Amino acid sequence: MKPGTNIVDPASLAQKHVDAVREEITGDALKIRVLGLIATKDKPSLAYARATKKKFDNVGIDYDLQHIERLDLENAILDANADHTVHGIFVYYPVFHNQQDDYLRNQVDFRKDIEAGSIYWTQKLYTNDRRVNKDSTQKALLPCTPLAIVKLLTEIGRYAEDIERPINDKTVTIFNRSEVIGRPLAMMMSNDGARVYSFDINGPLLFKDAVPEETEITRTQALMESDIIITGVPSADFKKISTSEFRDGTLCINFSSISNFAEDVSEHTDVFIPRVGPMTVAMCIRNTLRLYRNFHE
Amino acid sequence: MKPGTNIVDPASLAQKHVDAVREEITGDALKIRVLGLIATKDKPSLAYARATKKKFDNVGIDYDLQHIERLDLENAILDANADHTVHGIFVYYPVFHNQQDDYLRNQVDFRKDIEAGSIYWTQKLYTNDRRVNKDSTQKALLPCTPLAIVKLLTEIGRYAEDIERPINDKTVTIFNRSEVIGRPLAMMMSNDGARVYSFDINGPLLFKDAVPEETEITRTQALMESDIIITGVPSADFKKISTSEFRDGTLCINFSSISNFAEDVSEHTDVFIPRVGPMTVAMCIRNTLRLYRNFHE
Repeated sequence: MKPGTNIVDPASLAQKHVDAVREEITGDALKIRVLGLIATKDKPSLAYARATKKKFDNVGIDYDLQHIERLDLENAILDANADHTVHGIFVYYPVFHNQQDDYLRNQVDFRKDIEAGSIYWTQKLYTNDRRVNKDSTQKALLPCTPLAIVKLLTEIGRYAEDIERPINDKTVTIFNRSEVIGRPLAMMMSNDGARVYSFDINGPLLFKDAVPEETEITRTQALMESDIIITGVPSADFKKISTSEFRDGTLCINFSSISNFAEDVSEHTDVFIPRVGPMTVAMCIRNTLRLYRNFHE
Repeated sequence: MKPGTNIVDPASLAQKHVDAVREEITGDALKIRVLGLIATKDKPSLAYARATKKKFDNVGIDYDLQHIERLDLENAILDANADHTVHGIFVYYPVFHNQQDDYLRNQVDFRKDIEAGSIYWTQKLYTNDRRVNKDSTQKALLPCTPLAIVKLLTEIGRYAEDIERPINDKTVTIFNRSEVIGRPLAMMMSNDGARVYSFDINGPLLFKDAVPEETEITRTQALMESDIIITGVPSADFKKISTSEFRDGTLCINFSSISNFAEDVSEHTDVFIPRVGPMTVAMCIRNTLRLYRNFHE
């Protein structure tokens, strides 16, 4: 098979979800406003911010992108929480590159947290609480990137729809166990039937049926066992995964800003998805609509 | 001056606070129960856990130390939150050595959070909200280690009592800007009048009157300007501070498990406090009593 044949770009797969939101917003003439807050001069981050603004604007959401100093960010979030004309808040991370970023993530009112990265939403996921709040029948939000990865797998037909265990008996390895992406993703995929090896710098855990357990498995063993490999390690120190480490026909997804795969892996994969970003933005747009329907209408 | 002359051990300074709590508990015949949860086999951590249990037991608090697997810790915390016979919860960190530890810290009900390390309490400190809750006149809890450092400075007469700005015009450098120690401490000390240079791996900030601002100051400049140097970097990579880096007569405090000072600094200091632990435990004991009075009586 020719190099590049199996590469799937998420932008086209995301379009369907973006279009569905636009139709609903247009159909019901909804007036939704999102505040985007960016506190970095990093050029790729600024480009990403402009791209997200364009995506939101395109579906008919008023996306107000504001550049602020990092030390003003907390107050800007608190002001936006109190501002009834703001229905959703999007913060561009990293800001302080330390625990303070997690503190800030939790300053966003959960009713405006379109990334669903605050403890309010991740805790619901970890405890398998599917409702917005205890008096509601509405569904809880899911964090954008884990949800985006599941949607990408669904779009390419590797995550069954409308069945109890859509990814039953598959083995998945995820490199990343952050609280906003890796751990929620391991919980979601194992809850949907997969055996998930979750690696971080301190070693692996095995998730089955949304329950983690200790495991002694090595990177080599886990990769060779896997039907799906998902990577999100934003470090140049990570040893890139090469074709010799997995079986031909494995499905590979990278969501790190640095590719965690050696450049030539695609021709040995089932499908290679080198980035997730556009689907993440689509899921943030979807979450925005859901927050508006749940809390602001 | 002879080596070691200026070294102050916090154990004797902590005793007064421990005794005050014991008197109150005995006097009012209070029945207070704390659950300590430890999920490591690390020997120094186990020794520290036994030592804390003894301290709590000695003031008349029933301290139930339980060893559990790290993957059972979250449920143990949730069970303790729901258990009306448990008035305080003490968790020994690190557990997962990643963001999941911060997640766990926030699973502890704030009414039982004797370390005051959850967002509920740190947010009150950051926003200068001094009350337990909006309907209360009772004082909010402060995180144990920052509070312990302030109390140590008070005990040795370097933090005035009963005045508006107890540490006015002093310059302080703190190496550590974690959400549970370094940042709260910088906020507290600058709120009390100090100019605080706060360093972490990403560089410095300057706190004045509980407001951080950007600064270009170097380690060398900050140390030379400082009246007080406080270190908490648990990394062997940190370049230990030597006597040539600060003025003779500077007050130095280390709260890291690894000393961040070169061994021979004490004779060039005003006072050298090589560890904070015993005062931290005393402040946890004090917080326990305060939580009991506020929420469980």
